Formats: sequence, structure tokens, C-alpha cells
Amino acid sequence: MPTEIRSLNEECGIFGVWGHEDAARVTYFGLHNLQHRGQEGAGIVSNEAGHLHGYRGLGLLSEVFSNENRLNKLHGNAAIGHVRYATSGNGHVDNIQPFLFRFFDSQVSLAHNGNLTNAKTLRRELEEQGAIFHSSSDTEILMHLIRKSEAPTFLDRLKESLNQVQGGFAYILMTENAMYAALDPNGFRPLSIGQMKNGSYVVASETCALEANGAAFVRDVRPGEVIVIDDEGLKIDAYTTDTQHAICSMEYIYFARPDSNIAGVNVHTARKNMGRTLAKEAPVEADMVIGVPNSSLSAASGYAEVSGIPYELGLIKNQYIARTFIQPTQELREQGVRMKLSAVQGVVEGKRVILVDDSIVRGTTSQRIVQLLKEAGAKEVHLRIASPPLKFPCFYGIDIKTRKELIAADLSLDEMNTRFGSDSLAFLSEEGLISSIGLTFDAPYSGLCMAYFNGDYPTPLYDYEKKYRASLKENKVSK
Amino acid sequence: MPTEIRSLNEECGIFGVWGHEDAARVTYFGLHNLQHRGQEGAGIVSNEAGHLHGYRGLGLLSEVFSNENRLNKLHGNAAIGHVRYATSGNGHVDNIQPFLFRFFDSQVSLAHNGNLTNAKTLRRELEEQGAIFHSSSDTEILMHLIRKSEAPTFLDRLKESLNQVQGGFAYILMTENAMYAALDPNGFRPLSIGQMKNGSYVVASETCALEANGAAFVRDVRPGEVIVIDDEGLKIDAYTTDTQHAICSMEYIYFARPDSNIAGVNVHTARKNMGRTLAKEAPVEADMVIGVPNSSLSAASGYAEVSGIPYELGLIKNQYIARTFIQPTQELREQGVRMKLSAVQGVVEGKRVILVDDSIVRGTTSQRIVQLLKEAGAKEVHLRIASPPLKFPCFYGIDIKTRKELIAADLSLDEMNTRFGSDSLAFLSEEGLISSIGLTFDAPYSGLCMAYFNGDYPTPLYDYEKKYRASLKENKVSK
Amino acid sequence: MPTEIRSLNEECGIFGVWGHEDAARVTYFGLHNLQHRGQEGAGIVSNEAGHLHGYRGLGLLSEVFSNENRLNKLHGNAAIGHVRYATSGNGHVDNIQPFLFRFFDSQVSLAHNGNLTNAKTLRRELEEQGAIFHSSSDTEILMHLIRKSEAPTFLDRLKESLNQVQGGFAYILMTENAMYAALDPNGFRPLSIGQMKNGSYVVASETCALEANGAAFVRDVRPGEVIVIDDEGLKIDAYTTDTQHAICSMEYIYFARPDSNIAGVNVHTARKNMGRTLAKEAPVEADMVIGVPNSSLSAASGYAEVSGIPYELGLIKNQYIARTFIQPTQELREQGVRMKLSAVQGVVEGKRVILVDDSIVRGTTSQRIVQLLKEAGAKEVHLRIASPPLKFPCFYGIDIKTRKELIAADLSLDEMNTRFGSDSLAFLSEEGLISSIGLTFDAPYSGLCMAYFNGDYPTPLYDYEKKYRASLKENKVSK
Amino acid sequence: MPTEIRSLNEECGIFGVWGHEDAARVTYFGLHNLQHRGQEGAGIVSNEAGHLHGYRGLGLLSEVFSNENRLNKLHGNAAIGHVRYATSGNGHVDNIQPFLFRFFDSQVSLAHNGNLTNAKTLRRELEEQGAIFHSSSDTEILMHLIRKSEAPTFLDRLKESLNQVQGGFAYILMTENAMYAALDPNGFRPLSIGQMKNGSYVVASETCALEANGAAFVRDVRPGEVIVIDDEGLKIDAYTTDTQHAICSMEYIYFARPDSNIAGVNVHTARKNMGRTLAKEAPVEADMVIGVPNSSLSAASGYAEVSGIPYELGLIKNQYIARTFIQPTQELREQGVRMKLSAVQGVVEGKRVILVDDSIVRGTTSQRIVQLLKEAGAKEVHLRIASPPLKFPCFYGIDIKTRKELIAADLSLDEMNTRFGSDSLAFLSEEGLISSIGLTFDAPYSGLCMAYFNGDYPTPLYDYEKKYRASLKENKVSK
Repeated sequence: MPTEIRSLNEECGIFGVWGHEDAARVTYFGLHNLQHRGQEGAGIVSNEAGHLHGYRGLGLLSEVFSNENRLNKLHGNAAIGHVRYATSGNGHVDNIQPFLFRFFDSQVSLAHNGNLTNAKTLRRELEEQGAIFHSSSDTEILMHLIRKSEAPTFLDRLKESLNQVQGGFAYILMTENAMYAALDPNGFRPLSIGQMKNGSYVVASETCALEANGAAFVRDVRPGEVIVIDDEGLKIDAYTTDTQHAICSMEYIYFARPDSNIAGVNVHTARKNMGRTLAKEAPVEADMVIGVPNSSLSAASGYAEVSGIPYELGLIKNQYIARTFIQPTQELREQGVRMKLSAVQGVVEGKRVILVDDSIVRGTTSQRIVQLLKEAGAKEVHLRIASPPLKFPCFYGIDIKTRKELIAADLSLDEMNTRFGSDSLAFLSEEGLISSIGLTFDAPYSGLCMAYFNGDYPTPLYDYEKKYRASLKENKVSK
Repeated sequence: MPTEIRSLNEECGIFGVWGHEDAARVTYFGLHNLQHRGQEGAGIVSNEAGHLHGYRGLGLLSEVFSNENRLNKLHGNAAIGHVRYATSGNGHVDNIQPFLFRFFDSQVSLAHNGNLTNAKTLRRELEEQGAIFHSSSDTEILMHLIRKSEAPTFLDRLKESLNQVQGGFAYILMTENAMYAALDPNGFRPLSIGQMKNGSYVVASETCALEANGAAFVRDVRPGEVIVIDDEGLKIDAYTTDTQHAICSMEYIYFARPDSNIAGVNVHTARKNMGRTLAKEAPVEADMVIGVPNSSLSAASGYAEVSGIPYELGLIKNQYIARTFIQPTQELREQGVRMKLSAVQGVVEGKRVILVDDSIVRGTTSQRIVQLLKEAGAKEVHLRIASPPLKFPCFYGIDIKTRKELIAADLSLDEMNTRFGSDSLAFLSEEGLISSIGLTFDAPYSGLCMAYFNGDYPTPLYDYEKKYRASLKENKVSK
Repeated sequence: MPTEIRSLNEECGIFGVWGHEDAARVTYFGLHNLQHRGQEGAGIVSNEAGHLHGYRGLGLLSEVFSNENRLNKLHGNAAIGHVRYATSGNGHVDNIQPFLFRFFDSQVSLAHNGNLTNAKTLRRELEEQGAIFHSSSDTEILMHLIRKSEAPTFLDRLKESLNQVQGGFAYILMTENAMYAALDPNGFRPLSIGQMKNGSYVVASETCALEANGAAFVRDVRPGEVIVIDDEGLKIDAYTTDTQHAICSMEYIYFARPDSNIAGVNVHTARKNMGRTLAKEAPVEADMVIGVPNSSLSAASGYAEVSGIPYELGLIKNQYIARTFIQPTQELREQGVRMKLSAVQGVVEGKRVILVDDSIVRGTTSQRIVQLLKEAGAKEVHLRIASPPLKFPCFYGIDIKTRKELIAADLSLDEMNTRFGSDSLAFLSEEGLISSIGLTFDAPYSGLCMAYFNGDYPTPLYDYEKKYRASLKENKVSK
Repeated sequence: MPTEIRSLNEECGIFGVWGHEDAARVTYFGLHNLQHRGQEGAGIVSNEAGHLHGYRGLGLLSEVFSNENRLNKLHGNAAIGHVRYATSGNGHVDNIQPFLFRFFDSQVSLAHNGNLTNAKTLRRELEEQGAIFHSSSDTEILMHLIRKSEAPTFLDRLKESLNQVQGGFAYILMTENAMYAALDPNGFRPLSIGQMKNGSYVVASETCALEANGAAFVRDVRPGEVIVIDDEGLKIDAYTTDTQHAICSMEYIYFARPDSNIAGVNVHTARKNMGRTLAKEAPVEADMVIGVPNSSLSAASGYAEVSGIPYELGLIKNQYIARTFIQPTQELREQGVRMKLSAVQGVVEGKRVILVDDSIVRGTTSQRIVQLLKEAGAKEVHLRIASPPLKFPCFYGIDIKTRKELIAADLSLDEMNTRFGSDSLAFLSEEGLISSIGLTFDAPYSGLCMAYFNGDYPTPLYDYEKKYRASLKENKVSK
């Protein structure tokens, strides 16, 4: 569950429902529970008897739909929705999804979570044939491929197109008379099917969005599948059989909500196990275990449980964090202004603290928290990271595309410990991570994508290959 | 630390600083850490060489000062600020503090946390003498009393006036050349003095607001004291010696931030002790201990520690809660839409759960949470409340002025257990609360106000006496 | 009718209605037609069976009430309203009227148009007795005087208070059971009574606000009168008999709407007469007559009629003028950017133009318009001002309190002609103005206040006397 | 100059400048003077050394750019801009222009004024080839045609595409290194070239936008021309020679600003001539001539001049008209609430009035104004319309596409006179209109499009043909 403290960003959450009289509202509640996957924009498109209506805007879901009329106008028995994290510079409303296309012969709406590795190539090829793109997002590409296809049915055209895009993707599409959901051949991003009490099918990025609507979990969408939901019910199809599980490990470590299950594994439980394993792998004598709120609390309690060292509330996260802050002047900053996190002096003063964090990206937050605790009087701060060091960029939907942003790609363990000012530092091992999550797919790493940690990408990198090769030479820590 | 889940509301946080070149900004950061004490309005008044400037508005501090220019215009070396919780109907900008009065001979700014018990009487007396009030708040009264006084100095007039107001109050005032802070004779509300690295003195409702500015704790303002801060430094005076500690117990139980210390007692530690004591007083066999986020997590971890039952993350609080929500339709509500809290099915399913909450007001939230857990598959839910039953209203600054809102004033323990759908229910005892907090003042209840629980009000109720007497007859549960 | 082009500002418009089921809406429409008297703030207070409710805000009436709910909530059968021009620095919502006072024994709302000459003295006296003011406006003073008064009835207290305030004022007050309107002893500001078709009485600053509601004109409120409207109907009373008409001549020249009648004289007709008289007093050979839109069009058509020279549309006023403009850079300014006014080249090129303007304050606008016309090819520009030179400040409600702002107080006719770049310049004579308006009151200047032009103030200047005397010495042009 | 009173709407104003360091600001000032051509949206795209940046939004220009930073960020030496009138239902920001397209090989921005008659056909053909449109506006079509073209240069591709679109159009395009402007073969819409003092060329819908920047008029863009402006200067080319002038007569009658010249004819002068001719064609005995503000004032003064009957200010237009109004209740409406126009009772009471209006669309406004004047006491109201009866829709850029909206298509002169409640009614003749404007092109009607009045469309109607034929049968008044 991402907090505002971290610099790692998921790129989207998607949701769809077919056959519910309050479809837009169901979608609103689903997106509400997916808000942690993207806070920069939100949108909903509804289907009123074959006529698609949409509303989208910049900001949190509750801001975009702050005027309830906007939601009430989205009539119809089906709807799809999207919450978006926008990388800086793309924060334009043109890029907010779902996209809605009105053709002379049909209407299609489209929502996407993920990142294509051959987007640049496809876009150029399409433009050379006269295509005009209106957004800078990858998402439009699929629509152009579908319109170019000469296959007989929409489903055929969609399947043909899905075979042309590469990388990480979870798509939801809606036409006049059906909803479609598709997952890439590695299943990088989560996507689950649920069923509401009235029988309506819903599709969502995480199971917590099913529960928001009281929907029962049906099954996950699997790699290479395309599912169709219409008035006849649910049909499961596949556009390829060349698949292999490589679920993004960062979903378990950091992104997903703790109450979601991914591939049958509860996220909180996985995190607690990471903490437990870490306690075994990297024990240390101390007076208390503290977690960085809120994403590291599960791991911290696991560490406390196994180590037998009491779990304490040593850090407070301010609940009233505004999007934009008034910054302290330099002088005030030196006096230790803490807007987002506060150390609890009454708890940590004079104590040896084990600080559990879920992961380290740039390391600036870790350094700041260690300093906070020391200033509050902690005698020792032992930093324990409940995941392996992040050394390689992601090209499947997480917003880190260069190694420069990753401190563990540059510094050794000792160097990091010195930089952070911690008294000791340890990371969870790759094996520890895999066993803690406990997937059992017949695939490398039991079905996890571990590329972040070891550079072992499950697919070719296409448009990113060249840049990635170059970046490997820049960093000290070798693959 | 109040969450949006609860219906109990503190009425304010106050802050002041004298002698800092960034006084308004220091005040902004102080108020930021007091935001939990009031989210309906905020304001800052600065003192630029004897000229007072102010800005105030409805909403969160970050909303009121969303335009940084508003803060930058508040020049000067001293400032006072206020965050306000407004009871419905009073949500008018006229009531937002600090108030700023410009007289032909002086300027005064005034901020107040608390509630006067003789406000109605004083206001009427003043109006009969020709006074005109512009707000519906109690706060203006003090200013009228000061202006009516014929004592020689401002401090004398202030002291004379403080002897006329009754009830719970913490005031900060600022004139052209000094800042004043005063506490009622019982010290109902917290108020602490700190000192910044450059020597500037600050005053704040809670110590967490001192730390926000890197200020060292100096000492609490004590009942009956009035302190003066000016270019000469800090002077401590008293307007009365007829004092007796009766610190609001709800500050420890629910309102204050866990990283604050009140009367030398850390709030998180007090809460953890309440959980520990509760575990001893009301043990039960179960598989896990769960706390209601965020205010009950300390107590829950204390309960877990003493009982030896593992502490788990069984409830998730949605981080993206908007002020105004789009409501689900009735049908969706029945499907169990949960906007604010979600149960973690993967954790609680099939398990016996001890649910620790800090207190129960109306009981609607408790009932809803028990239901959430049961729907998520919890086999048993044992509700443990880390404070005694709330049966009596507060007249010293908490927004509950009638017994009708308090479920424990109406129902017996068994009736509540049935209403909530819990498998067992227990509250912390009054003695348990007192010993958990561990104050040692030579006063009833070791210096705590326990009126909430036992109706033993430390002062006459004045204007509220009649209404209170009547309400006692309406409720089943007798004093 | 003031335009944004001019720097002269009226300070308010007031309106009231008693006995109409849509009282707030009637007031809204009345204020809409008074919007030219003040664009900085607006407010309405309604009376719902003795309970007063109000809403006020900064901006145009339509902005303040952009959310129709704000108006719909103002229930009740009576209402008073106010539009305000705020001098810079006072643009705070605290100063927006009507003021609403809630006392233990009554409620009173108050709206004011005008300026008191003894406000500072009264305020100081009141503060010395303990009074607290909350706004920087003069208006509160009357309320304090009323509350201090020990006369038996509200009307008695009001009359006693009206005898204490000096200067120019038109007040409307509303209590639980009546509405009151009062005019100063000289009748500086206009105030008229009307009656709606259902019998309800209305009071308004100008008759155009009566017509906005289809109300028939009943009669003007006269100097020294206080009228009472309640469920019994209309009663006319007087608080003094020491009266003498001195109606502000600038109302006729510039402020009032052309469709209003003041003291029985239609404003457009008065202006057309000023143009006619000017044509006789200051004829010149030319090809066309042009008026500065919109306030000078009546005078220009009068000039054209008498001179026999055709009236042409030589200047266009841009209809889409925003409150705040993006300013051109210096280079663009030199290229002649004209945001508010454009000269019609196709009309004026090569022609001798008589440019009629209603008055000259600072002279900057006149200079700019002459330049515009010359740049558009006008061969000659003869400037004719349909009022005498403004040389003295106003202390009765117009926002010019110092002679420094008045070019005619500093420069001779020839100097002004040179400054403006016009080919000739002439002003209407004082006698010409008086005869054009055609009042017949038995008072100096037939009942007009001519102080602007000749410094002959109809009242003592009280608090302003000293400053005024000093200013007389600063300017070259003597009284 | 359209006012908010009328229901006839122009669809756009366009502006471009090349080679000025403040290009975006020049464009802002140009658009400011074109604001009357569209108030629903505005946008500017600038060219910073080959990199195109844009900002657009709903509302007036001053609202869209209320934050000056938005304008300041539009760096570069060239810019194009657009103000838009959006027909209801299309008021989406996606349709606001200029459009900005970023291709892998180039960037193009595009702004359009007019309406294509074969848009539907072209769009369908393009979609059948795989094209995806993102707006519902016609404007995108040209971009798709250009991208499909295989001609060697951008100019060649543009010229090829211009030969495919039919109807009324004035385009401005900007690429990395040039600006293009093109006019349809009939020159329905105005488009003029100017030159600033620094030598920069500007292009604008009306000459008043040249003057806003101090630019000298160079020449009009002529039917069938495409002009190119780049660092080399101005080049004039043509994409077709099959041209014939048919300038929209409504530009002269109503739309254009009076200070603009179209085809060398000043708009105010043309209107005054229409009034003069009307006075000759339809004289009537009366006491005064009144024009409907503001668009009919020129015609009214022409009528007065020829008839010798004095021109009076009998109607006042409220300057403070908000976009959205609070509506009076039915009862208040009956009392005659007038928000936009007021009759000046002091002027018209007891008088015989000639009311000059520029044109009649639905007739509801005319009816209301006649009623206003009668209620204000006018003895007779003789309605004189300074243009022929509007009987036929426009397909070249004016927002009337059906005859149902035109009262003169349904009612005879007598029937209209009865409906309006006027004492007599007369329209200008077609010959009178043509001679008043005084064009001398060698084309039908001297180069004017008179289709509005006589159904003589200068081009085939393509996609509208069928619907138009059907509508002819619905109305009583035959062609």
C-alpha cells in the first residue's frame, strides 16, 4: 500500500462491471479501494443500452467526482473505470483513462494497467500508415491495432492485437454489448474476477475492490487469457498459449493492499512472512521492533513475532498530509521539521531499535527516518529491509526506468549502512522472498518476476533494450 | 488521535511563538501537528513590529494556506494560530480563530481551546451593558471582559477577566508587545511550553507541536497559571491559587497524538498500558488481537503483549478518505460497501478475534466493525474497550453535551454485547484507567477528570446545570 | 453608470423588501440592477418569521450567489441586501454587508450607503466605553449607538442614534418585526420607496431596482426621514427637521443608471440636457460627435442634437472585460494594445471629432482616448466634458478623499488641453449643470451638492476638516 | 457584435502570429478582440524553436488564462489561437482548439472557423481506413487528410487536403517551421493579414484583432488562397482557382465588431447604411428612434439621421450579466423582472417609438422588448429590422441548421407583427441590404451570401442536402 513517503509508483488500477443497475456507482466503490494504485487521475465510462458516456479528471477519485451529479449522469448497466498514476510531464487530462472512442459503426472504451515494451515501435509504424495519436500514453496503441485488424469479430480483432503488444498489461475494454479483460502472457499485473450478489460479474486489479462491492472472488485472470462478459455471462478464452507466470514481486512487497489476495496469497500474510524470514536471516539484539507506517507494519510484526522482541509504535504518520506542502525554510528544516513522519520520543528514547522497512529505492527516506529516530534518542537503529536490494529497473508498469534512481545499484551494503547512519543493515534474501510469498507455479522463481533484484527479465526488452544495456555499464554494482 | 471514523470531537488546537523571524511558518508547522484536534478551520495571526495581520479560513490548514502567499504575507517575529473543530451550524468563517481585534489604542489577537460553563450568563450580562458580539463562539467573551476591566495593565485586566470565566480553557493572546497563555484552574486541556534552538519560546496544545519545530520541552502550563512571553523572555504568573488538577482523561484515551506527552506521560505508553491492564482485567481465549486503526493500535499491542496472543493486521483503514462521500445506494450498502475500513479476510477467516477499541460513544462504529469481521469469516469477535463506559457528557471542551448520544448511558453491558453482535464485551475499569495512565497529582483520581465515566464533575456546571439534571432522568443507566 | 474605465467609485447600493414570499429573490433582482454601485461584495439577509439568516461574499452578486442554494436557503417574507465597493485594503469579507447582529434579546441586520464625517470620533468614544468593533467600516457605529441608547423603543433608539452620526448616509435596518430606512439631513445619496403588485413595500438606492421587480414608484425618502415598514404597512417619520437638500451631483453626471429617476429627474434626460447645454456653451466646428461608452452616450447625443453635427460610433467598448487582466509587455503597450476601448478607424479616419466625456478625474483615461482617436487617424479631437472641473474631494460616500487625485485641482484648462493632446477642451459650467438637471428645491444650487466643483460643502467636515484644510494648500488651483 | 441576448451564434475566431518574441501574448490580445466570436472555450499553441506547447480550456479567454503562468509558459516566437462557440452537448474540453498533434516525425497545430458540408462523409471514409477521431468537431478531418496524403511537401499535402473539404472554412495551421492560413473557395468567413511594427505577420478572423496589436492591415486572405508565413516572410499561394465570393452577410449585420473592416467595408458604416436605407424603405411617424443595445445602435443612428427623428437611449443593457442566472419564480417573472435589458421609463413614457433591431431569429427577444417598452409606457412601438427576414439555415459556420428555429420561416409579416405586439413591423429588403453594404465583387449579390434570406446557397449542401430538402416541406413560408 503505497504511502506518500515513497518514490516508487504503480501506474494504475482498473475495474469493470457488467449487468448492474448501479454500474457507475459499483465502479466508483471499486476504484475507491484501488486508489492506492494511482492518485493523479480517475475516470469512469458507463454503457447505457449501447451508448457509452464518460467522465474523467485529474486528482483523487473523490475529487474528480466531488460533484455527485457527474456520477449520477453515468447511467447504464455496465461501466469500466481507471485510477492513474501519471509520471511528471504527462499529467494532462488527455491521458486520463478510460479512453472513449466513438466510431461511425461502434463505440469502444479502454482502460489499461501496465507498460508496453514495444510501444514506440508500434506507434511509429502506425503513424507511418496515417494514424493520429492524441495522447502520449501507450494505451491508444491497442485501439489502433484493433481498428486496423481485418479479422471478422471484435473478439478476433482484439486477440490479434493482443498478440502484437509486448510487455506488461492488464486491459479492460467495453463495447456496446460486451466487456473484455485481458492479461499479458506473464501475468505481471494482478487481475481478478468476482461476482456480485445479483450475479453481475466484476473485474478488478485487486481483490480488495471486489470486496468493496460485496462481490465474491471467482478466479484470477490468467496469463494469456482474454475473458468476455456480456448478457450471456462469463466466457474465458485465450489469445496465446505461450505463457509463463512472472507476477510482479513488488505487488506483494509494497504496492497491493494488505487485504488483497494475489494468486491466492494474502498480501498481509506474505508481508508478515517476509518479516518472519528476515528475523531468521538477520537477527539482532534490540529492545523493540518498529515498522515504517503504513506499508511495513505487517513485516515488522512478523519480525517481532519470530524474534520475540516487542513490537512498538515508534513512528507516527501524520494523517493530514496535503498534496502540496508549504516548505519550511532551511533554518526550520535544520530544526527538524517533520511533516509526514514523527518519531515517538517517549517510546524510543534510550532504546535499541530494529527498524523494519519494506524496501529501499533511492534511500533518502531511509536515511531521514534513521536520523529522526536518533534525534529522538534511539541508542541504536538496526535497519532491516523485508525485500532484497532493488538494483534493476522495471519495464512492465512500475515507474522506475533507469538504474540511476536505485541506491542499491550504486552502493554496497556497507556503503549504504554508512550513508543511512544506521547501526546495522540487512536485506531479505531472494530465496527468503520467494519462500515467504510461497507461490508454487511451475516457472522460474516459482512464478515471480525477480528482475528488480537480479536483472533476470522474463521477456525481451524491445524498445528499452539499448538504453538498458547502456545503463548497466554506468553502475558499480554489477549484475 | 481522532480518525474520521469516530463521532467524538475535540474542539481545538492552539499554538504561539514569540521572537522567531519565521514566526508564521513556525506556527504553520506547529498547527500541522495539531491538525488532529480540529479540521474545520484554521488561522494564523502574526505580529510585525506591533502590527497584527491575520488570515483564517474553513478547512484543513493545508487548504486554508494552499496559496503560499497567504502565509508569506504574515510577516513578523511572533504569531499565534488555531485549528478548530466546528460543531454543525457554527461552520461559519466568523467563528474561525484566532480572533483579531483592532482598537484605537491597541491590537489584540486571541485563540481559545475549551468550553466555558458560564458563557451564556456572561454574554447576556455584557450585552445588557451594550456589548456587541460578532461570533457565536465563547471566545469573544474574554475580550469583552478585558476591555471592560479598569485594571491598570493588560496583564492585570487579563487576570481579572480569567477569574470571571468558568469551565475548561486554554487561551493564547497576543498584543503588540507580548504573548500570553493561560490555563483554567483544573487544567482540563493540555498546554505546554517549549523553546526553539534560537531561544524563542513557543506554546502549544500538545508537545508534538513543539517537536514539529525542533523545540525542546520546557514545562507544562499549570492550572491557574498565566504566562507572559515577550522580548524579555518567559515569565510565569498565576491569576488564581484555587486550583486542582483534573486533566481530561479522553486526551490520553483518544484525542492526543501518541507521540505527545501530557503531564509527563507519553500518550502511546498510556494507551499501551490501558491495553495491558485490560488484558489482565478481561482475558479471553482467542487466535489473534486486532486494533481499530489508528487510535486503538497502541492499546491492542499492549493487550497482545500481556495475553501472549499474536497481534495481527485484521482491519485496513483506507488512506484516501474524502471529506464528503458519494453514498452507496441502499442495495449497494447491503452488499457491504466499506469506504473507510476493510476487514482482511485472509487474516481473520475462521479465526477467534479479540477486537480492541479505545472507547465507545454511540456504538454504531463498533457494531459495524464487528459485522465487518464476521462477514469476513471471523469465528468469534471479542470486543475489548480500553476505557470505561462513557455515560456522561463533557462541558469542558469535548463536543458531547447530552447523554442521548452515549450508548453506555442507555444500555447495560449485556444489551450492548447483543446490539453489537460481539461474542463478548468488556470495558477497562475506572481504576484500571487511572493506574494505566499513572498520574500522581494530589487530587481526586490522581488528577484526572473522570466525569465522562462517573459524572463526578470537578466544577459547578453553571449554565449547563439545569439541562444536565434533566438529562439524568431520561436515561436508564443511573449515576 | 460606472464602467471599469473610470477611477471614481460609488460606495454602495442598498435594497429591502417587506412582506413578499420570495423576499430574498426580490432582493437579488433589486441588487442586480444596483450592481453598478458596487462590484466588490454583496450580501442578503432574510427574515424568516423573526429569525434572521444571511449570506455574503466578495465579488459580483452573481458570483456570491453562483450556487443557487445559497439564495434558496434565505427563507422568509422580508429581506435586505447590499452591494459594496471596497476601497483597496478593506476588501475583507468582514466588511461585506448587510451586517447581522444576534443579541440575547433581539436580532438586527444593517446595510449602509454613504460615509460618516464623525466616524473616527464616535468609534473612539465607543471603544473607550468598552465597545468592540469587528470591521473597519463606519457601518457598525450605528449599531453600537442603538445598543447604548436607553430610549424605550427600537425606533426611538434608532432616531436618537441617527442624530449622532454626521455626513452622508442611507441606511436600511431590519429587526424581527420591521424594516427601517433612513436618509441623512442633506439627502446626499438617493433612496426611493416602491410598491410591488402584491402590496409589498420595497426600498432601494435607485428606482431602476424598483423596476427590476415590477414595483411602482411611491416616493423618495426625504432628508431627515426615517420610514418604518412592517406588517401594518408603511409609516413615515422624521428624526430631525433641520434638513436641506444637497443631492450628490455626481449621481446625475456619472453614477446612477440612466433609467433611474432621482428626485423626479430622469438620469438619462439630465445627461442629455448636460450635452445640449454644453453644445451651446462650447460649440466647435467638426464632422462628428462621439461619446465615451457607456456613461457619456446620453450627453454625446444631446450635444449632437443641438449642434446638428452627426453622432457616430467612434469608440467601441469591449464587452468581455475581466476583473484581472494579463498585462501587455512594454513593447506591446507601445504598439497600442487596447483592452477596454477601441477606436473605429473606419469612422474617425481623417475626421474632426468632438469627443464628449461625462467628467474627468485623474485625466489618464481622457489622455489615452484622445491618443487612441489620433492614432486611428482623427484629424482633430475636441474634448467636451459634460460637467464642471472636479477640484475637491467628497466626504459623503464617493471614494475620493484627497485633492491629489484630481487633475483639475492641479492644472489649468490650457495645461490640461496640452496634457491630453486634444485640439480644444471645454467643461460644462456650474450654472449649466444646475440648469440641465433642473432641480427646484429651495436650497443652495437648487438642492444639489456642488462641493466637488467649488468646495462649498453643505456640512461641517468634522474628522476630515484638518486634513482637508492642509490639502488646500498643496494644490495650485485655489478654491 | 453578438450580445448574450441573441440566440444566433458564430462558431469561432482564429488568430496567428509568426516572428514575435511575445507571440503567445500577441495572440492573447488578438483573441481578446475576437472574444465576441466565441465565449465557450479558448486556447493558444506556441512554437518554441520547433517545439509546440499549448494550453486550452472552457470559458472566456480571461478565465482560461486567469493564471498568468499559463500564458507565460507558452514560450516561442510564433503562436496560433482560437476562441470557440460550442453548441450544447459539445462543450467538452476535447473540442477546444487549437488542436495539437505530435507525430514521430513532426508537430502540427490546427485552428478552424467554419463548418464543412461533407464532414460526415469524409469522417466515415477515414474511419473505414482505420482512422481514429478524438473529438466530435469537423476540424480533425483536415489533419487526417494531410497525414494520408502522399504529396511531397507539407504545403502540397495541405493543398491536396483543402481540395477535399467542402463548405465554409478559415484555417490556421502551424508546424515546426511555418504558419499556414487558408480560406474556402467562397470566402464565407473573414480572414485578414496584418503586419506588426517589428515586421511580424499576423493573421486574424477580423481586423479589430490586428489593431489590438497595433498591426497594420496588409490585405484580406482571398477565396481559395493558402498563405505561408515563415522566417522568409509572407508567400501567397492558392489551392484552387475555382472561386467566387460569397461573404456571409450576417457578419456585416450582426457578428463582426463594428470597428472591423471586411473586404474593405467598415462594419459600423455598413450597419449605419442599413439603418439609413431602412428609414427610406419603411418610414413611420414617431417621437424617437431606439436601438437594441449593443448590436443595433449603428443601424438605429442611421435610421434617426435619415428620418430626422431624434435618437434616444430608451433601452439599457445591464453590464453585469453572469453566465448563469438565478431565475425568477413565475410570480416574479410576471412582475416583469428584466435581468438583461431595462426600458427607460423616463424616456419612452407616452412616446411613439421606432425600435430598430439588427435581425430576428426566433423572435422571442423582439417580443420581450416590445413588451418592455409598452410596460414602460410607450404609446406606439414600430419595429424596424435592419436586415431581411431570416428564413433559411446556414451550413457554413453559423449555428442554425434547421428552419424550425427561424420565426420568419413560419409566420408572415402580419402574423409576426401580431405575435410581437408591435404597432408596425418592417424588414430591410434584400436589395437594400446589398446596396447598404456596397460590395462590388463580380459575383451573385455583389459577392454576399444571401442564402439565409433566399435559400440561394452558393455551393452544394452534400451531407446536409437531404435534411434540408425535408425541412423545406415542413414550413409554411415557401422558398
